[in-house]
Amino acid sequence: MSAIIMSGKTLADEMTIQMQEDVNKLKEQGLTPGLVVLLVGEDPASQTYVRNKEKRAKALGFHSLIKRYPSTITEEELLNEVQRYNEDASFHGILVQLPLPKQIDSDKIVNAIDSMKDVDGFHPINMGKLLIGQPDKIPCTPYGIIKMLDRYQVEIEGKRAVVIGRSNIVGKPMAQLLMMRNATVTIAHSRTKDLPELARTADILVVAMGKGHFVTKDFIKPGAAVIDVGMNRDKNGKLIGDVKSDEVAEVAGYLTPVPKGVGPMTITMLLYQTIESAKKFAALSTEKL
Amino acid sequence: MSAIIMSGKTLADEMTIQMQEDVNKLKEQGLTPGLVVLLVGEDPASQTYVRNKEKRAKALGFHSLIKRYPSTITEEELLNEVQRYNEDASFHGILVQLPLPKQIDSDKIVNAIDSMKDVDGFHPINMGKLLIGQPDKIPCTPYGIIKMLDRYQVEIEGKRAVVIGRSNIVGKPMAQLLMMRNATVTIAHSRTKDLPELARTADILVVAMGKGHFVTKDFIKPGAAVIDVGMNRDKNGKLIGDVKSDEVAEVAGYLTPVPKGVGPMTITMLLYQTIESAKKFAALSTEKL
Repeated sequence: MSAIIMSGKTLADEMTIQMQEDVNKLKEQGLTPGLVVLLVGEDPASQTYVRNKEKRAKALGFHSLIKRYPSTITEEELLNEVQRYNEDASFHGILVQLPLPKQIDSDKIVNAIDSMKDVDGFHPINMGKLLIGQPDKIPCTPYGIIKMLDRYQVEIEGKRAVVIGRSNIVGKPMAQLLMMRNATVTIAHSRTKDLPELARTADILVVAMGKGHFVTKDFIKPGAAVIDVGMNRDKNGKLIGDVKSDEVAEVAGYLTPVPKGVGPMTITMLLYQTIESAKKFAALSTEKL
Repeated sequence: MSAIIMSGKTLADEMTIQMQEDVNKLKEQGLTPGLVVLLVGEDPASQTYVRNKEKRAKALGFHSLIKRYPSTITEEELLNEVQRYNEDASFHGILVQLPLPKQIDSDKIVNAIDSMKDVDGFHPINMGKLLIGQPDKIPCTPYGIIKMLDRYQVEIEGKRAVVIGRSNIVGKPMAQLLMMRNATVTIAHSRTKDLPELARTADILVVAMGKGHFVTKDFIKPGAAVIDVGMNRDKNGKLIGDVKSDEVAEVAGYLTPVPKGVGPMTITMLLYQTIESAKKFAALSTEKL
């Protein structure tokens, strides 16, 4: 039996149709969702990500801006720029593309974003709301993964889940989201012993460790849903995931591909949260009237 | 072999000696740590907790105040009171004793506390800082448990930990703290299947489920460190933990008793964080000079 391939691309396309309707409705009401991306320096990977975000945002009819800054910008200057967009009512989402140059403390910058415009979900207050089970903005990658599990009707309630990787943007929020849905969740990481044995207890295995083809079929419980968050280049420059997909597909029940798996959903959730944010700002300004 | 009993009482006494020295030093510098407890209504358990906190705070020479309000107080009135103590520089810690009467949204009240004075560690921003691995104020019960594990030299790094219970004040922050110390952590809860089997994988087992004597020796890996957060009354009114301590002590390597285990450490960490908060405010006001 070969695993069902969970296409993030297909789900992203489906969601985009609904989101397009939402944007059209908002525009009829005189509201255009606005997303500004602050991009510092010339990192080629960042350039690519940011271009993709802009392309998708513009296709939906967003008010979309990439604001570029030289890599020599000071922390204070960048903080001022964040403040400027916090106050600019035409933007409902602010995203600072990471990584930032060394002279800038990324945490300070992220903390300075108005948490209502924090469509990446990285602000400590949004992380805190997630931890206490009252999520508002949610980090986009794990949020997209939950949407994929739901779309493919993978049961979460009462299941065992193992998340490999404890980053703030994937592993930790992923664990919270799965626990909120009543999974029993273990976070594994670089110091975890007997990792394959632990992974084999998982009905849902999320792999976000950043090591190409690390997870082999020995890690997989037969029938498990396997989510591959990895984006690595092999020695030939080909994009590969953290999961050795050819052999894992023989054992798993569900598997996300790389590319066209988690990636397209991450951008989709970013745009989705920007639309939700625009709706919230609109509701607030109506309340004030 | 019988488990080593981890006395929270003994460690609390040890820490109190050190804290007393700290308070004396601060007072020589003209700074008295101040803790205000806002107590609404006449709940007998709350009265007892609050009295214990006050007794310990006064013994250390704190500026200590219990501010009592009738159970009919409105949300707005209580919010104003929180604001008043946020602005009162003589208090470095503010604690709102929970539960609050039904007409008051506890989350709103907790969120209104200045996060710098949130010595309970329940404010979303403090929870968020904990989740992203940059803890400031930490919920006192899990914080105290880490101190006990350290005092009894229970190794955390690389170990498997299972936390039973996913409350915002114990289970979730406990999991974060253990993970920050490189344990591989699973949170179990009411929907977890095969709980005894899962618990038996734990080198460190933290039980915070609120069911008297629920955890029997079948849950215990030989030699494990077992932390009992439960405070229940049996049919004779006797205080008992979640762990059936007589039989678990035969299998576990370490066990916290009830009473005199986790309880005394929780209050100690509250006072500890109030002293730390006073130091921080003092440092800030020096910076301003």
